[in-house]
Amino acid sequence: MKYEPIDLSKKFELFDEYWTPKLIAESNNQLVKLAKLKGELVWHTHEKEDELFFIVKGKLKLKFRDGEVVLKTGELFVVPAGKEHLPIALEESWVMLIEPASTLHTGDINEQRTVGIDEQEWI
Amino acid sequence: MKYEPIDLSKKFELFDEYWTPKLIAESNNQLVKLAKLKGELVWHTHEKEDELFFIVKGKLKLKFRDGEVVLKTGELFVVPAGKEHLPIALEESWVMLIEPASTLHTGDINEQRTVGIDEQEWI
Repeated sequence: MKYEPIDLSKKFELFDEYWTPKLIAESNNQLVKLAKLKGELVWHTHEKEDELFFIVKGKLKLKFRDGEVVLKTGELFVVPAGKEHLPIALEESWVMLIEPASTLHTGDINEQRTVGIDEQEWI
Repeated sequence: MKYEPIDLSKKFELFDEYWTPKLIAESNNQLVKLAKLKGELVWHTHEKEDELFFIVKGKLKLKFRDGEVVLKTGELFVVPAGKEHLPIALEESWVMLIEPASTLHTGDINEQRTVGIDEQEWI
């Protein structure tokens, strides 16, 4: 049987939209997603799910109500469940996200850019 | 409050042992681990847990009973639960693994290099 690696760089070539997570793998009921980020999203919270960010390229600030963290290429951070956060891409950022299949990327906030899990596309 | 990114490169500088996963983060009851691999491990199976491999540097072959896949830097692969596999580092490889807290890196095989989860070290 033929098995294929998932090459992140090639996957990122397949889309241009910002803030539109694409699905690339599933593992233990969690989805591995890629997203291109630019500018800022909205303050939101995932009540029950932790959200893992890994920066493939770029610089992403995560603002919290009590502080912030700036993530650069090759850096990782887990936003714990229940922690309100505002992602701000300080430059265009390519990000790998790992979170339960149920997680909405805008958490409790339904806004124009919210992409429901049913609409999230496998690439 | 001060939040710190987890810089994979810096974490990899903290250890030299091969086949000895180090813990760097937890997310949704899964552990994010870093390991340096060289040579081959043993055939083994994780009966209930998928295992996500992401190659930070190097070249890793995963042999299966019905095929194989070779993963290079920047590539990702999920070995599904129940699938017997033999990891072979074709060159020294630095790998990020994501798997449930309960997963043993040698699966059902307890061999000299098996590092129980209680002994896996946070770095």
